[in-house]
Amino acid sequence: MPDIGKLLWPKSVAVVGASSNLHSLRGRILEIILSHPFAGKVFPVSRSASDVQGLKAYPSVDALPEPADVAMLIVPAQYVPAELERCGKAGIKAAAILSSGFAEEGDLGNRMQQEIATIARRYDMAVSGPNSEGFSNLAASLCANFSPASDKSAGPLIPLQPVGRGQVSVISQSGGVGFAFIDRARPRNLKFRYVVTTGNEAVLEIADFVDYMLDEGETDVFLLLTEAVKSPEKFKRVAEKALRAGKPLIVGKIGQSEAGSRAVASHTAVLAGSAAAYRAVFDRYGLIEGRDFDEMLDLAVGFLACGNRMPAGRRVGICTASGGAGIWMADACAAAGLEVPILDAATRRALDAYVPSYGTTQNPVDSTAQGVQKFGYAEFARLVARSPSVDGVIVVITARRSAFLEGDLPKLKDLARETEKPVFMWSYTLPAERTVEILNEAGYPLFTTAHGCAGTLQKMADYRALRGRLPFRVETAPAADRSKTKAMLAAAPRMICEYRARPLLAAYGIGSENTGPLVHSGDEAAAAAKAIGGLVALKVQSPDIPHKTEAGAVMLNLDGADRVRAGYEQVLDAARRHTPMAHIDGVLVQAMARPGREVILGVHSDPTWGMMLMVGIGGVLVEALGDVVLAPLPIDRAGALALIARLKGAQLLGGFRGTPPADVGALADLMVKLSNFAFDHAERISAIDLNPVIVHAEQEGISVVDALIVKSDDRSSEGRSAAG
Amino acid sequence: MPDIGKLLWPKSVAVVGASSNLHSLRGRILEIILSHPFAGKVFPVSRSASDVQGLKAYPSVDALPEPADVAMLIVPAQYVPAELERCGKAGIKAAAILSSGFAEEGDLGNRMQQEIATIARRYDMAVSGPNSEGFSNLAASLCANFSPASDKSAGPLIPLQPVGRGQVSVISQSGGVGFAFIDRARPRNLKFRYVVTTGNEAVLEIADFVDYMLDEGETDVFLLLTEAVKSPEKFKRVAEKALRAGKPLIVGKIGQSEAGSRAVASHTAVLAGSAAAYRAVFDRYGLIEGRDFDEMLDLAVGFLACGNRMPAGRRVGICTASGGAGIWMADACAAAGLEVPILDAATRRALDAYVPSYGTTQNPVDSTAQGVQKFGYAEFARLVARSPSVDGVIVVITARRSAFLEGDLPKLKDLARETEKPVFMWSYTLPAERTVEILNEAGYPLFTTAHGCAGTLQKMADYRALRGRLPFRVETAPAADRSKTKAMLAAAPRMICEYRARPLLAAYGIGSENTGPLVHSGDEAAAAAKAIGGLVALKVQSPDIPHKTEAGAVMLNLDGADRVRAGYEQVLDAARRHTPMAHIDGVLVQAMARPGREVILGVHSDPTWGMMLMVGIGGVLVEALGDVVLAPLPIDRAGALALIARLKGAQLLGGFRGTPPADVGALADLMVKLSNFAFDHAERISAIDLNPVIVHAEQEGISVVDALIVKSDDRSSEGRSAAG
Repeated sequence: MPDIGKLLWPKSVAVVGASSNLHSLRGRILEIILSHPFAGKVFPVSRSASDVQGLKAYPSVDALPEPADVAMLIVPAQYVPAELERCGKAGIKAAAILSSGFAEEGDLGNRMQQEIATIARRYDMAVSGPNSEGFSNLAASLCANFSPASDKSAGPLIPLQPVGRGQVSVISQSGGVGFAFIDRARPRNLKFRYVVTTGNEAVLEIADFVDYMLDEGETDVFLLLTEAVKSPEKFKRVAEKALRAGKPLIVGKIGQSEAGSRAVASHTAVLAGSAAAYRAVFDRYGLIEGRDFDEMLDLAVGFLACGNRMPAGRRVGICTASGGAGIWMADACAAAGLEVPILDAATRRALDAYVPSYGTTQNPVDSTAQGVQKFGYAEFARLVARSPSVDGVIVVITARRSAFLEGDLPKLKDLARETEKPVFMWSYTLPAERTVEILNEAGYPLFTTAHGCAGTLQKMADYRALRGRLPFRVETAPAADRSKTKAMLAAAPRMICEYRARPLLAAYGIGSENTGPLVHSGDEAAAAAKAIGGLVALKVQSPDIPHKTEAGAVMLNLDGADRVRAGYEQVLDAARRHTPMAHIDGVLVQAMARPGREVILGVHSDPTWGMMLMVGIGGVLVEALGDVVLAPLPIDRAGALALIARLKGAQLLGGFRGTPPADVGALADLMVKLSNFAFDHAERISAIDLNPVIVHAEQEGISVVDALIVKSDDRSSEGRSAAG
Repeated sequence: MPDIGKLLWPKSVAVVGASSNLHSLRGRILEIILSHPFAGKVFPVSRSASDVQGLKAYPSVDALPEPADVAMLIVPAQYVPAELERCGKAGIKAAAILSSGFAEEGDLGNRMQQEIATIARRYDMAVSGPNSEGFSNLAASLCANFSPASDKSAGPLIPLQPVGRGQVSVISQSGGVGFAFIDRARPRNLKFRYVVTTGNEAVLEIADFVDYMLDEGETDVFLLLTEAVKSPEKFKRVAEKALRAGKPLIVGKIGQSEAGSRAVASHTAVLAGSAAAYRAVFDRYGLIEGRDFDEMLDLAVGFLACGNRMPAGRRVGICTASGGAGIWMADACAAAGLEVPILDAATRRALDAYVPSYGTTQNPVDSTAQGVQKFGYAEFARLVARSPSVDGVIVVITARRSAFLEGDLPKLKDLARETEKPVFMWSYTLPAERTVEILNEAGYPLFTTAHGCAGTLQKMADYRALRGRLPFRVETAPAADRSKTKAMLAAAPRMICEYRARPLLAAYGIGSENTGPLVHSGDEAAAAAKAIGGLVALKVQSPDIPHKTEAGAVMLNLDGADRVRAGYEQVLDAARRHTPMAHIDGVLVQAMARPGREVILGVHSDPTWGMMLMVGIGGVLVEALGDVVLAPLPIDRAGALALIARLKGAQLLGGFRGTPPADVGALADLMVKLSNFAFDHAERISAIDLNPVIVHAEQEGISVVDALIVKSDDRSSEGRSAAG
């Protein structure tokens, strides 16, 4: 493993392609490095000039007085591989490649990019890029990039009064977006440690940098921007490591829309994978998604200031001096999924002494301008924070003028020291610089949008709850079943119909082995139906007709010998019309399932993330709204229950409008079993559909009504879903 | 009608309760008025001082040298009515009441508030408040309020280089929020005309001020913040007037959540009405809802800059020099409901000459930093704006430094002059002040969040489309039917069961008059079923059991004399068990309806907005998701179709997964008929349920399967929904 420390903490930097032209990017990068008090050496490397921006220039990296720790390559793409090779030979252990024109540009570029990876491996070099914009190590005052955000004129690299005690690092595939975080965060006084832009990620990926920084232990909050994850297993491993360490990964995933992912493909030339699968992986590992700069920075501010006292639940107390602004905040809390409960009687009694008659103590607590004028913000926040009815407090303030808060500062500091609950500030006016400093000094996060404030509190509550579920448990089936199933799977055809799939799945406790008889004539069908009694279903079994219902090859609710006999002919006819050359193994005769809620359960392989478990509420919800959610395998019972809760129609399972609640526990158990089955045999399986599964009333279990397994081709884990 | 002009354009202002103490609100208001170059006279009125802040003070409003045009009342609540009376007697025609302690404080305050209204009527005075924060007329340099946003130190009242050519007015119930708009809009250079805060609206409401400003014709965009609308009919009339004039009303509706509306009630003591009904009214009249300051200001900026060339559709072209930022914008567009289509071949060919090989022309057009460096932003925007594939353009820029844009300015100006499509700018870095000015000068709206930019474009497209539907047509039934129905309704009992409701509704073309026979014994039921043939339904008819299905008083799909007979006994038993003292009129025997999509249609009365039409897709979607939408009555056919399209499950009606499309046209026709019925007889009707309505395949119409009319008590239009 190459040493990322050489890249981020160099004692010397070579700028290969450096220029004296300050209007060119090759001139700008050197100018910017030199404008900051970086303590290491800087070597311009230029073919044509012997002096660049007043420094002695070297004709080549092998002509340097000593091997540089890192080489910044900013030369035309076609020269990059040779230059990198030269760096390797010269003993340079790290490089950042800023040149464009690689995988984003087609075959030739793609080959050059692979060459870069090969050279990096050969010399064990830590290489970022190509198509990156360089990096900054703010702690070392090293800005090895040409971003305007690194310009000395843009302001100090480290704020005088940072929010919270921790540091933030940005790791972004996009250079422009990566450095824009620094720019946009400046009014909010975030203390950045690193900004790394990874571009096409020929060698080092975002996860590699996160891993390094977690080991280093100096980064408390990560801001990530990813177009596509190249090494999913590494990503998941590092994400779990971050979650265990309690270092939140705040992530912007760009390219989620059709046009966006089209642009990703042309931009960094990697497969974007499905947005739903990304979200599933993020949810599993506690990555917190933000949809724009402001949302991501709000989250960073919240975690930096209150990461040591995240909300234990979703109940918020709101203090306000502006009735209207308080109401707006209450609405924003509700929209974010927080609760704004009426406060307990004791708290309200305590507040009565401070709130004028035309204010209110219920929640939002409207202390009115007069109340705040008299007692300050801190007094109200303290009383509300003590209430057993809330898990966190939002104080609505006007931060335009600092004078008033200045007076309140000692009390604000006391409160921040004493409380175990997060206290957030939202200013409905634009904050003065000094106000931000005062609040940072006192230890409060300041938000300027109500939704950013409420959303951050809600996501911090989620993050705390998810960490409470650590470590993730995985329950697997006994080893004996595993090897037996493995052999059966090996022997099975590619498309495993229900009558063959059931015994396989039953070994893991999924559904019953008993499929009902497979019949080959109308008379056999009628006899089987009679033996079963009551209403029956007929289902054609053919490896060539995986979607039986759409083919008309299923009939339900039949009774009586004549109807069953006629049904048998009808489903066979339909099957033959649908797929004339289909090989038909027979027709299953089954008792109709007991009533309950219809659910779709499945497993399929995402092109990036591999095997994913899918659950959805069946029928019209899936048809009209695509109400399904995914999780990466494997999943534990708590994860299964959390997944079910994320369905839009989840309440349909929970006992709704007087209907008895469904056996959600049995559904979660089934999900774990299916996860285990697919996880144990991932190399053989492309997709599994259990559709439908009927979830009966509580304590009455579930019925797996149909099952289909699609084996993968050539043992690759790639595959299409058989769902739909 | 009192003259709002006297209030907003006074030649003289009396400040009643003025003080020399600049730390009190009573001192601040006078200080602020005097700090701006207001050309009128200012009269301090004080009981105790003869000189206030260097001005001669008067002991009472009747001691002024001349009647002031407006009196600002900032005295304790209990003195307000007498003071207002004194103003009236002294010939003062307008007043703004800033004092708190009225309806928000209980019975006594409520009575005082009513007194204010009475006095205002008596003297025909234009009165805003109480519990307001005053107003500003920026055009007259009059800041009659104590908001810090009006402080001279906060910056110039009118920006040097405003965005667009138009003016914005803010009218807000909340004082704090109202003036915060000015504060938050300052970096964006909006030219404000008025900020009016209306508080408890004892006399003048938001709609009164909008009406005045529409007549005045100088306000181009309105920013409204409402807690609750007091006079719905006036509000609707003024909203339609604004829509016809093409002056967008951008509205923040606070108090939409439970906690929020609880706080509204205690804050301004008015009934908040249902959030869904507000949304329905906003949608009908083209009010554009923003959920926070930034969203509302983004909308204002968009309309001010591009109100004369709103997008004719939802297709956007994106130009970017940062691949990552462009992708993020594409995602934001998709999330906002815009399309980002691949550009036409001719446009792409034209772009090829400008875009380097490692960029892309598909859309987003990634010109790369090099491309923009060479040709500027305007060139790319011009080429994309000409494409027939797009209705608007978003240019992704970095606005940190103005120098580059400065060079591009002539071309940017040309483009803004020539194009008929909106061209928006989004900066992913924080803009420099000068950049905002340059873009304003050139005529472009600048956005700092991708979602704000995309959302504004989308809402402008919607606004244009809605105006295209003007004038709203209302088709009513012939007068003959109306009077006949009126008489029948008058004679009917309060709870009108299906068998009595059908003839009433059929007069308006709703469903069929034929209810099937009403039977009174099992034998009669069996005979009726036989006569009908096929499967039948049995439904108990009782004014005491409006929710038959929940009571078990309905059976479906019966055939055969025995089953029908048994069914008859069963539904009667269930009805009697459910409501032992129920009066039962009989049991309807009906043929089962043909298959189709189940829809719920209804009318009910909202406490604020009166009669609302409701449509929802039935079954699980309504149960799990409450997938219903509302519209105020009356509704025309285009409105009905637009309403259906807003259902989450709308695609279920539109032919989905190979199922034939449903007869949406017939459903829209039915909605118009129901609307007409309820509109014509609004004074008699509390609620109507048509549940379910079955929408058959295209051209095959609809079946109204059940119907219930609930008459209103005492001819008031108040009432509860019978739905559910």
